[in-house]
Amino acid sequence: MTKFELIPSEIIKVKNGEITYENDMLSVEEPLEIKISYLKDGQYVEKDLSITMRTPGHDQNLVYGFLFTEGIIHQATDVSEYVVNQEITSKTGLLANQVICKLVSDLKFDFDSIERHFYTTSSCGVCGKASIDAVKIACPIIVPQNKWKISHQLLYSFNQTLIEAQKNFTYSGGIHASALFDLEGHLLSIREDVGRHNALDKLIGEALMKNRIPLFDAILFLSGRASFELIQKASMAGIRMICAVGAPSSLAVDLAQELDITLVGFLRDNRFNIYTAPERIDLKS
Amino acid sequence: MTKFELIPSEIIKVKNGEITYENDMLSVEEPLEIKISYLKDGQYVEKDLSITMRTPGHDQNLVYGFLFTEGIIHQATDVSEYVVNQEITSKTGLLANQVICKLVSDLKFDFDSIERHFYTTSSCGVCGKASIDAVKIACPIIVPQNKWKISHQLLYSFNQTLIEAQKNFTYSGGIHASALFDLEGHLLSIREDVGRHNALDKLIGEALMKNRIPLFDAILFLSGRASFELIQKASMAGIRMICAVGAPSSLAVDLAQELDITLVGFLRDNRFNIYTAPERIDLKS
Repeated sequence: MTKFELIPSEIIKVKNGEITYENDMLSVEEPLEIKISYLKDGQYVEKDLSITMRTPGHDQNLVYGFLFTEGIIHQATDVSEYVVNQEITSKTGLLANQVICKLVSDLKFDFDSIERHFYTTSSCGVCGKASIDAVKIACPIIVPQNKWKISHQLLYSFNQTLIEAQKNFTYSGGIHASALFDLEGHLLSIREDVGRHNALDKLIGEALMKNRIPLFDAILFLSGRASFELIQKASMAGIRMICAVGAPSSLAVDLAQELDITLVGFLRDNRFNIYTAPERIDLKS
Repeated sequence: MTKFELIPSEIIKVKNGEITYENDMLSVEEPLEIKISYLKDGQYVEKDLSITMRTPGHDQNLVYGFLFTEGIIHQATDVSEYVVNQEITSKTGLLANQVICKLVSDLKFDFDSIERHFYTTSSCGVCGKASIDAVKIACPIIVPQNKWKISHQLLYSFNQTLIEAQKNFTYSGGIHASALFDLEGHLLSIREDVGRHNALDKLIGEALMKNRIPLFDAILFLSGRASFELIQKASMAGIRMICAVGAPSSLAVDLAQELDITLVGFLRDNRFNIYTAPERIDLKS
């Protein structure tokens, strides 16, 4: 938990008719504006790329992860300068709310195409890449043929490990988590955000910055539901197994099936459902 | 529940080491492409507006609600033609996945400005309208001065009413609901979607099509968390009270405070928290 993620708020608590006045903790939600600067016809131009409502903290992870999962950069060094505009802060002023990423001059880049992808709504998951085929083209990772296999017992432990690590969730009840586990069930990393896509972008951005992608031998854990876009983002990072506490959507299952990603849902209280690619889970041990 | 919202899927169920093979129901998630056709320099031009990942069903509600809460149309009759392109279906083929809305010729409309708002990410809630001030300008509803007041007992009943109405949730555990209650606690309408913003857009779109906006005397119920964007959409429709089963974010609380909307969170198990404008809830009866 960083100091940016929660702020206090005075509330009225009502329970079975009993009324108390308390200080509660709220998950912080603030806009982050992401701009890119890139070489066009011999000179650098600056463009607005995205405004996302995020929980401040790990902003650089978020920005790198977003640029990567959207297919704009392919490695951390594709960003030559990461500039935080300290003048743009919101009223809470917890962290600056504008960053500008300068892209290396030889990065192949079609802003018009990016722009077409982006004029879409918040409820949207795909930003224009609306079909599974499009994801397969955008995500040309060559996956190793040999598959690992883990004990189904191991999956039961993820929840408890995460709850202990994710103190925020316990406090505010209003934040999503994404986490990576290794094949022995050790927690590698955890990132949180009011937006589930942001939490995953932060996690992937951190891995990118640490040069750990592709994540063929890591298991992704999601504290909420599994939507199409989350599977898509995970596949960009080479993740082969995704476990969600909540339900997957139909298109999430279709995409996982198509990409041969093991998809587990409803992982809680010593139970789970396997939707796709069950070969990676040893049901006998 | 419509026939479009759930599809069966074969899964492996694991519980305490016991393994069963079952047919489970999945919430359907499919892209819907929204295009608009509008008058520019004397002739109609067609533009892509948005692709949203939605649960098929009530598509026209969704489209009208989206156009309204984004400030593009102000009443249902601002759309002169609603055309469903039957040729664009996804692989499940449940409903056509492309609609074109022709806007009336005298609608004031700046597509460039809309486009700027939209190139933003899925995790985003505000599509460029990143400040509370911007919302206040975009949402010039004149709210009546006199406030109503309801019994706090009434709030306890919303959950149960919704659970009975929202059979999907019980089945798949993977869908969001938005509902409207009147001031006596009667359920007026309910809409569902894998995306929480879509569920609210469907609800508001229905009200718009039935000429029921502004919704000064209705209470909005959200099955999940309350984010900034949901408060913003509700405020566009004139809603004065929002009750969420989950937690609100910090910016959701700020916006509700600024707009004098009563915001209730954690409404479940005979309890709730009041974050803003408590005068509309009678804590004594």
